[in-house]
Amino acid sequence: MDELRYQNTRRTDLALEERETFEDDDVEIKGVVLEEDYDEDTDIKLTRVIIKDERGAKAMRKPIGTYITIEAPRISGSDEGYHKPVSNLVAAYLEELTNGVEGKHILVAGLGNRNLTADALGPQVIDNLFVTRQLIKEFGDEFAKRNRLEMMSAISPGVMGQTGMESSEILRGIIKETKPDMLVVIDALAARSVSRLNTTIQITDTGISPGAGVGNNRNALNKDSLGIDVIALGVPTVVDAQTIVDDRMENALRKKGFSEEEVYQFLNEMTDRDVENMFVTPKNIDDSIHRISYCISEAINSVFYKEPKFGKA
Amino acid sequence: MDELRYQNTRRTDLALEERETFEDDDVEIKGVVLEEDYDEDTDIKLTRVIIKDERGAKAMRKPIGTYITIEAPRISGSDEGYHKPVSNLVAAYLEELTNGVEGKHILVAGLGNRNLTADALGPQVIDNLFVTRQLIKEFGDEFAKRNRLEMMSAISPGVMGQTGMESSEILRGIIKETKPDMLVVIDALAARSVSRLNTTIQITDTGISPGAGVGNNRNALNKDSLGIDVIALGVPTVVDAQTIVDDRMENALRKKGFSEEEVYQFLNEMTDRDVENMFVTPKNIDDSIHRISYCISEAINSVFYKEPKFGKA
Amino acid sequence: MDELRYQNTRRTDLALEERETFEDDDVEIKGVVLEEDYDEDTDIKLTRVIIKDERGAKAMRKPIGTYITIEAPRISGSDEGYHKPVSNLVAAYLEELTNGVEGKHILVAGLGNRNLTADALGPQVIDNLFVTRQLIKEFGDEFAKRNRLEMMSAISPGVMGQTGMESSEILRGIIKETKPDMLVVIDALAARSVSRLNTTIQITDTGISPGAGVGNNRNALNKDSLGIDVIALGVPTVVDAQTIVDDRMENALRKKGFSEEEVYQFLNEMTDRDVENMFVTPKNIDDSIHRISYCISEAINSVFYKEPKFGKA
Amino acid sequence: MDELRYQNTRRTDLALEERETFEDDDVEIKGVVLEEDYDEDTDIKLTRVIIKDERGAKAMRKPIGTYITIEAPRISGSDEGYHKPVSNLVAAYLEELTNGVEGKHILVAGLGNRNLTADALGPQVIDNLFVTRQLIKEFGDEFAKRNRLEMMSAISPGVMGQTGMESSEILRGIIKETKPDMLVVIDALAARSVSRLNTTIQITDTGISPGAGVGNNRNALNKDSLGIDVIALGVPTVVDAQTIVDDRMENALRKKGFSEEEVYQFLNEMTDRDVENMFVTPKNIDDSIHRISYCISEAINSVFYKEPKFGKA
Repeated sequence: MDELRYQNTRRTDLALEERETFEDDDVEIKGVVLEEDYDEDTDIKLTRVIIKDERGAKAMRKPIGTYITIEAPRISGSDEGYHKPVSNLVAAYLEELTNGVEGKHILVAGLGNRNLTADALGPQVIDNLFVTRQLIKEFGDEFAKRNRLEMMSAISPGVMGQTGMESSEILRGIIKETKPDMLVVIDALAARSVSRLNTTIQITDTGISPGAGVGNNRNALNKDSLGIDVIALGVPTVVDAQTIVDDRMENALRKKGFSEEEVYQFLNEMTDRDVENMFVTPKNIDDSIHRISYCISEAINSVFYKEPKFGKA
Repeated sequence: MDELRYQNTRRTDLALEERETFEDDDVEIKGVVLEEDYDEDTDIKLTRVIIKDERGAKAMRKPIGTYITIEAPRISGSDEGYHKPVSNLVAAYLEELTNGVEGKHILVAGLGNRNLTADALGPQVIDNLFVTRQLIKEFGDEFAKRNRLEMMSAISPGVMGQTGMESSEILRGIIKETKPDMLVVIDALAARSVSRLNTTIQITDTGISPGAGVGNNRNALNKDSLGIDVIALGVPTVVDAQTIVDDRMENALRKKGFSEEEVYQFLNEMTDRDVENMFVTPKNIDDSIHRISYCISEAINSVFYKEPKFGKA
Repeated sequence: MDELRYQNTRRTDLALEERETFEDDDVEIKGVVLEEDYDEDTDIKLTRVIIKDERGAKAMRKPIGTYITIEAPRISGSDEGYHKPVSNLVAAYLEELTNGVEGKHILVAGLGNRNLTADALGPQVIDNLFVTRQLIKEFGDEFAKRNRLEMMSAISPGVMGQTGMESSEILRGIIKETKPDMLVVIDALAARSVSRLNTTIQITDTGISPGAGVGNNRNALNKDSLGIDVIALGVPTVVDAQTIVDDRMENALRKKGFSEEEVYQFLNEMTDRDVENMFVTPKNIDDSIHRISYCISEAINSVFYKEPKFGKA
Repeated sequence: MDELRYQNTRRTDLALEERETFEDDDVEIKGVVLEEDYDEDTDIKLTRVIIKDERGAKAMRKPIGTYITIEAPRISGSDEGYHKPVSNLVAAYLEELTNGVEGKHILVAGLGNRNLTADALGPQVIDNLFVTRQLIKEFGDEFAKRNRLEMMSAISPGVMGQTGMESSEILRGIIKETKPDMLVVIDALAARSVSRLNTTIQITDTGISPGAGVGNNRNALNKDSLGIDVIALGVPTVVDAQTIVDDRMENALRKKGFSEEEVYQFLNEMTDRDVENMFVTPKNIDDSIHRISYCISEAINSVFYKEPKFGKA
């Protein structure tokens, strides 16, 4: 990796986009495996990034693990028939990364602030789940088997500005008390590319680790911090406004013939306090988040309840 | 107590209403103290019911403790100036029952289902709180003292049908993890009288104990089940439809000259599956719950932050 | 009709329930035709009340016209597969009462206050409609024919307490300006029986006529007041609390052997200011109104767009 | 004006920002008067742009009239005490531009889509208005005088994608039917500068005229199209993402020494389909729109009701 290459420090939560920052797509990055698939009928692109070792983790600034990305550009649209194949893919990958849910109790946590549209994905998913733990506790295993239910509980812990507590504190407490076998966290992500907003779903077995790929953080949501396996399922709902500006600027300056070094220096000089805390979002964000969160709820429900007759419209 | 007296088994969560079922207001019930006060200017009535011993607890079907009721018929209306005196009273009683909040960390829990209007009081109160725990943890005690902040955290745990977990499980987990000194729970209550809907606030130091005054229940929210003191603050938002029907029927039959015994027998014979799970509620319930929950938030905020400049509109 | 028979003056908006107040179901009321049908598979009951002349209108206290009622007890539940047959029936009756929508421009108005749950049915239906007028105006008749679209516009006019205007004023203005051929109004109704709450849909070609069957009211929404045909589609979402009390009381007193006259006198004596402006509603009203309004939107969309691929989740 | 000067074609709805595009602030533009005022205590900046004639209208690409701008950077914050001075200023300018509301009937219309956060300002303002027309119609002028009420009605007409109708069609119909003397429209605007998002209020007597300063459009909301005076009150809630990118790019290229002409050519070459239909918005947009819309409602209510005791929290 060129030392002088401008490091766009603006973050992406997508392993896929981190991978794309490496200049030549075909170059193999040591410790990172990339697999891609595309379905013409549905226009869905599947990518699997596997970070195999510490070398890969360092290059990718993400923890070791498997990152599956479903890119479904039409999911944001109003064609309801289109939800089914996406929902089925999410369900299949959830089954894969959880190693099957049979006989397990799984806690699903919807992170984020339900009162801020761009951050409400997690709570909206939780609102449409069909939880089963209380039914199985009341009616027993026989009932569960007969109705093909697996045990799911769910929580929207809120954000620190609303609760005064880290999500990790709340979840750690609930996990110790109710002893689930695994945690699935749902969260709104930041992406670098606007075309991925509300159209891309990333599922990973690494949990969520604030900070660059180092998992040893009490506020992380992963096996180290919580003691159980954590699957993270996320959808990019915002792009940082600075990212948009920087990306365009970089392209523009390169086109004009500036050198790596000059571009790097220029962007570092530019500080733009104005766009701090600003994000870029599509006009129909309320609708698209509603749609994609419903699609994810359906996927999760189908994993825990084999012949779903229930659901919340 | 007359054995034949018809026991209206429909529940009220208000100690005040339980007290009123005793026929003669002036009769002293053993083990129960009643104090009343009334302010003509504000039309606010204050009642303090103290259940002193097991005999009182049995008669009242509620645990031993202090129950303070603020009846403010105009709080549901649109006069915003009226909120202040009610809010101040709530704050004063919270200070009294918590023995002051200085130097304590208090967790506030808003029980109920935010998606069902009549049950959304608790979550709506939480949405307007100004939590401070994260600030004090980040900036230290000196900062807190300078800004006259006391430590508050808050959570809306949801209901079992949404989470698969008892509120007591969630709160017990969070309490073990974050170690607050005291819990304040906010909840929507059931009353017997429609005139008390969204106009009455009850504050008690007994917590919440499902079942008749017996505190030894894992699903209760009280010192026995959670290990810390629990203050419960509630507002009646519904009357059970059966209660309305029974009350009117009882009055009607008495008026017509039927004996205690006949009335009792008649009401017991009547079963009305139709009105099961139905409740009686005023037409403007959405507005009034919004108003009274805002008033309670303001009260709590003022207890934890002495010169409030903050708040969420 | 027995002159002394107690006239329960509490209102029902359902012609079906008005018909039921006549003591003997089999007695033919002059000027009123009653047809009933029942589907065992879906547990859906269909009733058609036709008020043929002024005599019938007077007896029924409703205007001359056709009143179709779909009773679908399971529509309030969470089985989404159940929506389809109900939605199809609503669509079929809409087609029947409108005489087909081909080549017409139809305005759909969702009455009620979107901020009060029990009154929000109309606005919620409008929120899920796929309006077409703007598309047809922009892309032309050829486009409409190719895509099998008929012309629909829609409005939620709000209620007088929010707008300062009668719904009839707002709609009359819009009708004069945009010249639709027909108006369909959606509204939340009052019923007498709690078992009909959120489970029953009434469709009528009489519009909405406040007052007992007399159509000559400027605030009515019917052909007389608006100049175009008006179809009204309603769902009972509340029962007046007084109705519940009166009904139970009447039954109780009859059972105890009181005469017609005594019952009548007794109920007239009883005035219960307490339950005024109170209504009876199921605990899950928010969910059920959400479900049934979505079902109605789907029905309307399917009438105006023959092969729906669109929709709002 | 330099012909070669790059014309940032991205729109701003603020006359203030249009004025700022002229390079030298002190240069007088023919036909345009600029007055500025600043209050240090409240950090509120007041600007009055008066477009006096066609020459000014052409230069400013806005119709002839008065544009008052209140810039209150702290209005978006949580200090509730800060709302009062802003609200008072809005009320004062409304009085000025309406020439007083005494004896007039004024219709207030909240434009926009209530289901898209960034567009919901108008409907949210309407939701908090205290309308009086129905009261004055019912209780008479004497009642109005005694209670110091002026006549206000209000409507949220929705957007074309929801109704199939232009807002102008709906409002024209309602105006013909209810005959108000004046229309006040509330709308979310687009700005060029992110620092103005949710902090700036523009009030103008020109109404709303889509297209560059030419008022003769059936879809405009102004005296030409509606027949009555129209005051428009708007708050910028979004900046077009392309605007942000273009502005930064322009600055960057100028800094690097490119000529006017080169910058102009470069920006025109750049087309960035990716950021089309994307907007830039602060993270807390839901909260800030809630706050500023409440502040505007209070201002309007105070104009129509001299000693407000009412209001909706």
